[in-house]
Amino acid sequence: MRQSELFTKTTKNLPEGEESKNAQLLIKGGFINKSSAGVYTMLPLGLRVLEKVNAVIREEMNAIGGQELLMPTLIQKKYWEQSGRWDVDVIYRTGEGVKTEKDFQYGLGWTHEEVITAIAKHFISSYKDLPKAAYQIQTKFRAEARPQAGILRGREFLMKDLYSFHTDRADLDDYYQKAIGAYKKIFGRLGLQALVTEASGGAFTKEYTHEFQVLNPAGEDTIHYCETCGFSQNQEVYKPEAHVNCDGEVKSGRAIEVGNVFKLGTKFSEAFELRYTDASGAKQPVVMGSYGIGPTRVMGTIVEVYNDAKGILWPEAVAPFRVHLVMLGESPEVRAEADKIHAELSGLVGESEVLYDERNASAGEKLNDADLLGIPMRLVVSEKTLAAGKIEVKKRSDPKAELMTFAEVKKMFK
Amino acid sequence: MRQSELFTKTTKNLPEGEESKNAQLLIKGGFINKSSAGVYTMLPLGLRVLEKVNAVIREEMNAIGGQELLMPTLIQKKYWEQSGRWDVDVIYRTGEGVKTEKDFQYGLGWTHEEVITAIAKHFISSYKDLPKAAYQIQTKFRAEARPQAGILRGREFLMKDLYSFHTDRADLDDYYQKAIGAYKKIFGRLGLQALVTEASGGAFTKEYTHEFQVLNPAGEDTIHYCETCGFSQNQEVYKPEAHVNCDGEVKSGRAIEVGNVFKLGTKFSEAFELRYTDASGAKQPVVMGSYGIGPTRVMGTIVEVYNDAKGILWPEAVAPFRVHLVMLGESPEVRAEADKIHAELSGLVGESEVLYDERNASAGEKLNDADLLGIPMRLVVSEKTLAAGKIEVKKRSDPKAELMTFAEVKKMFK
Repeated sequence: MRQSELFTKTTKNLPEGEESKNAQLLIKGGFINKSSAGVYTMLPLGLRVLEKVNAVIREEMNAIGGQELLMPTLIQKKYWEQSGRWDVDVIYRTGEGVKTEKDFQYGLGWTHEEVITAIAKHFISSYKDLPKAAYQIQTKFRAEARPQAGILRGREFLMKDLYSFHTDRADLDDYYQKAIGAYKKIFGRLGLQALVTEASGGAFTKEYTHEFQVLNPAGEDTIHYCETCGFSQNQEVYKPEAHVNCDGEVKSGRAIEVGNVFKLGTKFSEAFELRYTDASGAKQPVVMGSYGIGPTRVMGTIVEVYNDAKGILWPEAVAPFRVHLVMLGESPEVRAEADKIHAELSGLVGESEVLYDERNASAGEKLNDADLLGIPMRLVVSEKTLAAGKIEVKKRSDPKAELMTFAEVKKMFK
Repeated sequence: MRQSELFTKTTKNLPEGEESKNAQLLIKGGFINKSSAGVYTMLPLGLRVLEKVNAVIREEMNAIGGQELLMPTLIQKKYWEQSGRWDVDVIYRTGEGVKTEKDFQYGLGWTHEEVITAIAKHFISSYKDLPKAAYQIQTKFRAEARPQAGILRGREFLMKDLYSFHTDRADLDDYYQKAIGAYKKIFGRLGLQALVTEASGGAFTKEYTHEFQVLNPAGEDTIHYCETCGFSQNQEVYKPEAHVNCDGEVKSGRAIEVGNVFKLGTKFSEAFELRYTDASGAKQPVVMGSYGIGPTRVMGTIVEVYNDAKGILWPEAVAPFRVHLVMLGESPEVRAEADKIHAELSGLVGESEVLYDERNASAGEKLNDADLLGIPMRLVVSEKTLAAGKIEVKKRSDPKAELMTFAEVKKMFK
């Protein structure tokens, strides 16, 4: 992609009151645009990052037998009433021809246990139909009172929600561990160190549930964790005496919740009468689990973790492009050499993975933009590199650049 | 994918009042689930089809310089008021803590001219920034009074909306023709014969706009068209004297509108003060176009066009799987042979492109399901084919099956 043709530009202007670091950096780089409080557009650069996050999540969900579907946003009142969640604060209500709140017909989907359970009734009737797992990656809506965390907590955000269905508790417990394994792989691939943290089950269960927490000052949660034994608890359930059989120190810190796993048990299957016939012919409620990851929040977390004074440092797995090729100077020779390298690089890593800055702009502007955009590998072609018969190569995470031959550069992408 | 592991099953049960053929066939096959009037879940099979439709659209949009982004659903009242569209009938309104209609803060996105124009103000200021084009594939919402056409016209549906930005009318006119060319390619690849049909510009323009109409009794529009010269007009603008310089017969028929292209001109750029500085330093309003395709409606149209008494006949480009491998009979020999063929086919076309029916079910049930699901190529392995050392091959669109060696079958996928 040629940078002169990009739909967006970097900017120094921030919308009023935008105080979160992730949103500031993403807006400056032209990754997102703020539409209103807690509501953002994913601009082409941002959508590229988000789709790479989604691709990693999809692979690991498919690997544990999840089948992707897409449920609706307009969820009828009767679904929410059946589970007792029509009156929650976070639900946006709407309908056709609404004059007063009595006329509302739908709640916008902020979670989909109700809908998936109603759907599963069509396809699960026998123990032979179990286990099953289905997930979606979908825009969700929550009426947050004062969203101030950029894309870490929006009123509109992307969510991956997986739901699993089992004959019994033991099978759910097995799958729950599989899901935890998949989540560890996902966050590892995305460059995030997520601590598996015990938390309260809220209205769902008296057992602990598990959150995946990334230590970071931008987090809204406080966790207590031990680096020696892996102990980690959310503040809401933490009691010092819970940390046993280990001499390690329990530290405390702010953390961002990037995922969670829940044993729903039979709460929703009982509310929606989702039952199966067991081998003896008796009717049993299906045992369920639910497993969430917020891709937009994950993207915001990556920005909160990977940045410096100059901009973002994208991990390779989610970078909007693999390589940023920057042409400095406008002599025909430099342009011809940069064009040639662009063509060869495109052949090597795919044209859509190379951002080629061939704009007529100053060296300072172009290099500052490159730091702000945060593509992991920067290649510079200039009069100086041309004279040396080399290319300047700099990793975004390294302070220093080095000169390499193009043959050496190409080896890095093989 | 093993059919026994599929999240869904075929069914004979239809929801009450579901009269559209596309929804009936898609529900029977387990492609979609009806959540409420005009609101459907895309089940795993349906989502596979929809994503193939989307992939074709994305390729052709990228080919004409469209850059993908993702705009919000929650669109603040002030945006709609700025263009005079807050009070349209089709808008769903919502907000935080709404008690009466005065409290509404957002309209759910049913089109995005307002939002994209506001975004473009950040990135377009000079003639050097033009032309530009951006699109999204996004769930949209319209408060349809009585949705009865299945996924042809839902209250919640997927939309591809492309917006283009130009210095002047001539550049818009050029791009408009390019977009028409891209649309022809898209519908051609999807197996739909779409007539480029002149229609009213409504509130936007006194010129004609163009609709892409597929002749079908399920259509809500009436068009008048000539097969000799390509003349086609929507009933709303048709005058017999418009068909000139051609002796061909003008026929009339019902048609489904699968896409449309609009010259917006400066309506939105003036409302949102989207201006650029021309080469002489003068401020000019940006000239805009918008271009829509509804992927869910396209999917419904394909079903309306490609079906018979037994079920759907998916065109190859959008089929949920390329091959349906059906094992009939349960002897260890048949299963071993079918497993072997499944493994080899998966290596050839990708495991995700083979649906393998290895269920313990009757031949009648399995063959009926295969017809209903409509995968273009069916391979049967049975005692009979085993004895012949061959495989039974049947195209969904052919009445007859034939026996072929596996070597011959494999050649078809090369």
